[in-house]
Amino acid sequence: MVLIGKNLIAAEPVDAADGTYTAGGALAQFEEASSALVDGAVDAAARAFDAYRQLPAETRAAFLDGIATTLEGDDDLVEAAHVETALPKPRLVGERARTVNQVRMFATLVREGSWVDARIDRALPQRTPLPRPDIRRLLIPIGPVAVFGASNFPLAFSVAGGDTASALAAGCPVVVKAHPAHPATSEIAARAIIAAADVSGIPSGVFSLLHSTRNDIAHALVRHPQLQAVGFTGSLRAGRALFDAAASRPEPIPVYAEMGSVNPVFVLPGALEERAGSIAQGLKDSVTLGVGQFCTNPGLTIGIGDERFAAFVHELDALFHAAAPGTMLTPAICRSYEAGVLRLGGIEGVSMTRSSATDQASQESQALPSMLATDAAVFLRHREVGQEVFGPSTVVVRCGSRDELYDVARELEGQLTATIHGTSADLQEYAPLISILEKRAGRVVVNGFPTGVEVCPSMQHGGPYPATTDSRSTSVGTAAITRFARPVAYQSFPQMLLPLELQDANPRGIWRLVDGELTKDGW
Amino acid sequence: MVLIGKNLIAAEPVDAADGTYTAGGALAQFEEASSALVDGAVDAAARAFDAYRQLPAETRAAFLDGIATTLEGDDDLVEAAHVETALPKPRLVGERARTVNQVRMFATLVREGSWVDARIDRALPQRTPLPRPDIRRLLIPIGPVAVFGASNFPLAFSVAGGDTASALAAGCPVVVKAHPAHPATSEIAARAIIAAADVSGIPSGVFSLLHSTRNDIAHALVRHPQLQAVGFTGSLRAGRALFDAAASRPEPIPVYAEMGSVNPVFVLPGALEERAGSIAQGLKDSVTLGVGQFCTNPGLTIGIGDERFAAFVHELDALFHAAAPGTMLTPAICRSYEAGVLRLGGIEGVSMTRSSATDQASQESQALPSMLATDAAVFLRHREVGQEVFGPSTVVVRCGSRDELYDVARELEGQLTATIHGTSADLQEYAPLISILEKRAGRVVVNGFPTGVEVCPSMQHGGPYPATTDSRSTSVGTAAITRFARPVAYQSFPQMLLPLELQDANPRGIWRLVDGELTKDGW
Repeated sequence: MVLIGKNLIAAEPVDAADGTYTAGGALAQFEEASSALVDGAVDAAARAFDAYRQLPAETRAAFLDGIATTLEGDDDLVEAAHVETALPKPRLVGERARTVNQVRMFATLVREGSWVDARIDRALPQRTPLPRPDIRRLLIPIGPVAVFGASNFPLAFSVAGGDTASALAAGCPVVVKAHPAHPATSEIAARAIIAAADVSGIPSGVFSLLHSTRNDIAHALVRHPQLQAVGFTGSLRAGRALFDAAASRPEPIPVYAEMGSVNPVFVLPGALEERAGSIAQGLKDSVTLGVGQFCTNPGLTIGIGDERFAAFVHELDALFHAAAPGTMLTPAICRSYEAGVLRLGGIEGVSMTRSSATDQASQESQALPSMLATDAAVFLRHREVGQEVFGPSTVVVRCGSRDELYDVARELEGQLTATIHGTSADLQEYAPLISILEKRAGRVVVNGFPTGVEVCPSMQHGGPYPATTDSRSTSVGTAAITRFARPVAYQSFPQMLLPLELQDANPRGIWRLVDGELTKDGW
Repeated sequence: MVLIGKNLIAAEPVDAADGTYTAGGALAQFEEASSALVDGAVDAAARAFDAYRQLPAETRAAFLDGIATTLEGDDDLVEAAHVETALPKPRLVGERARTVNQVRMFATLVREGSWVDARIDRALPQRTPLPRPDIRRLLIPIGPVAVFGASNFPLAFSVAGGDTASALAAGCPVVVKAHPAHPATSEIAARAIIAAADVSGIPSGVFSLLHSTRNDIAHALVRHPQLQAVGFTGSLRAGRALFDAAASRPEPIPVYAEMGSVNPVFVLPGALEERAGSIAQGLKDSVTLGVGQFCTNPGLTIGIGDERFAAFVHELDALFHAAAPGTMLTPAICRSYEAGVLRLGGIEGVSMTRSSATDQASQESQALPSMLATDAAVFLRHREVGQEVFGPSTVVVRCGSRDELYDVARELEGQLTATIHGTSADLQEYAPLISILEKRAGRVVVNGFPTGVEVCPSMQHGGPYPATTDSRSTSVGTAAITRFARPVAYQSFPQMLLPLELQDANPRGIWRLVDGELTKDGW
């Protein structure tokens, strides 16, 4: 594995003199980007924008396919990610497959072409009192995009992840700020993108990679006047800081920050009657999956505190007691998890069960799965009980009545997901719960677990604040592409000057809304 | 005309004790809303939200149709608007028709139902390595919306205007802050909405009207924790202040502020050769239409400073010299126009032609159409020459070359519209101009004028900042509805708990993306 350790500006390694840093495994020293390099990257992106957005859709799709193929065969990528993040190789091989499929999905979307939401209202020259001019509208790419990857998915939500793939698919140049916890993985993924760009004849300014551990560099990127949008996955604190920086620019720009959530799981009485054991097992598996480092990790488990629920909690308690510790991404993340669990466990009225496997737990980065339990009154009094502790823990909340359970649901912060386990009878009896949860979450799951985010057109991976800074958007699935586009209308344009997608004959063969009717017909 | 002069909270007049104000024509005294009334209005909206969003689409459509019918027959509305805004009655009758048609368009959109962008990916239980769960997604209303109307369109962009109609259509309750320049018009439109709500059995909290002249009340509304989005039409200063207030909330919410622009018109040499006279006449008519009080008013006219252009400017000069003064909306707006024109006219290198009809101009609120002229160097040096002066004026910019014209285009701020007059040969010769302008504007017009914003699916009335705070949105046309909605995914839901739009049989008969294919079929 040969690593360059430099910032990659418009496909070229560029020297910097602002120091270096290294990450877990110390695979190489990485040069800290200067603000001049930030300018260089965004300026190159802005210069490449027109040429890139005007390429034929097929060229852009081939570029994405090329990225997928390059990533698919790159074992250094998995090796580096394993060393830098401590995530097991099989998991990383799976994540690479997901990443590759995601990039290909966007290639298919771009080839098919209907995502531009083309609308045509033809001229009505005879209309009274005024004739109607010919008006046609479609989505065009918004401009240079900055992407900040997450530490917990070093492939699928990082350099070549969903934000980058959707922005490139939309026709936007991308500047990635590598996550400092996996710079080598980032470099390898970046080089895959650069290689694919080279093969497809994509302008080099379309992609740059910046290495930095400094907040001021991240902010310089977000505040660069030519930058038009930001994709981010990570913590609430970091995401909100970038959102604030973007909102206070002279020209504000959208920030799509996905900042995780506690993903409440409601366990209703009938379901417990039927299958308490399998729910407990599934929940414990979901909480500890990937050492709890998923943004859809179920950190809150809520039910009616009757005897069945007590038995369920008892069972869950045993499962957590016996659960194996796991290695978290970094020592800092593990310390933060530990502190978070102890903080909640220290609240009066909160009990705590921890994994008993203390022998391994003495190692740095080893996290103990934990279950905390309390009642609704404590939950409603202490807001932090409903806030995310990143790692393998869940807080069980016992409610005294159906109404108290609704109160807990109403007090939830914005969530990526909310889950209900219930029989048909439960779901009818607790019908208002769905209505409450769809207002608080981007995805509502019945009789399943929230971990496992399918990549498909119907996926919604987003939700009300603080799950994201923009509940209207998703960072997974085909709809993610519209984050990086904006509509433009063309009035009374001659045919030859219209984008292909809006020309009479419909040469792209896409779905269009013509005079109010959806059709693939041209004329 | 009987006026109540009170804030209308959840359909009821409510007393306030924070003073009163009156507007042009002094049709009544209007009570200033207190912050308690702001809370009352938004709390009522939040309480009504579930009941309203869960009504059948037909009920919501009938409510909108009812608003349209009530407005259509209300002559007090036109009378009050005429007195309060000084806009001529025929114009207001036309604006009422536009407003009515717009509300009906949203009723039709809601009845048809496909706007929810339904997507279904059916379960693949046999898929390896993991089965795919059933996932379905649609847009649901975002929650209570605040609407701030504009002074220049007291009907179409005010209480019952496009923001309110699209929010109600989406399923959101609305709290309107009446524009203090036309409170009586606002009350009459609000009562039309309340009457229609009553007939259709709509919960009373779905609509409230607040009267206020105070910024702190506007900000209290935007910062109310239950409020979920803001629609605004007005000045850059006021729009930006509301955007900043919303972005700095603990939970930020989207602000759709349409803040006007200068709407540059490029006049290319071939077009001048062919029809300089008709372009000059059309331009002058567009600049002075409605006394220049349109957000799409062409405030900038740009060309290559050759002899043909000099002759064109000479002709334009004569037209402005002879143009009739007009009455602006308020004395303050007229003073601001006058100050703006004189400020630009005072810049070195800027010449000024004003209407010679000085006899009427001495009246308060009477604005003199004005043409200013300068060259590209001055334009590029003085940013304010490219910024909006609200009123009947345009700044002519002479460029020394094609490249200089492109430089001017590149330096434009974000625009609602940009226009090019050119022959086929011009448009080919100046092809890069379209590419520059589509990045700076929401709508690009060829051989027409930007005033006149068609209400239809393909309209884009929006644009990069400072034209709006959200270039991804439009405030005119059917796409405006998506501003007030967000996606929710339903995973593994039993049929009977799914929204109608997502049930297998497709009982609403809408377009849906099923397993990646667009279809109206159910199964």
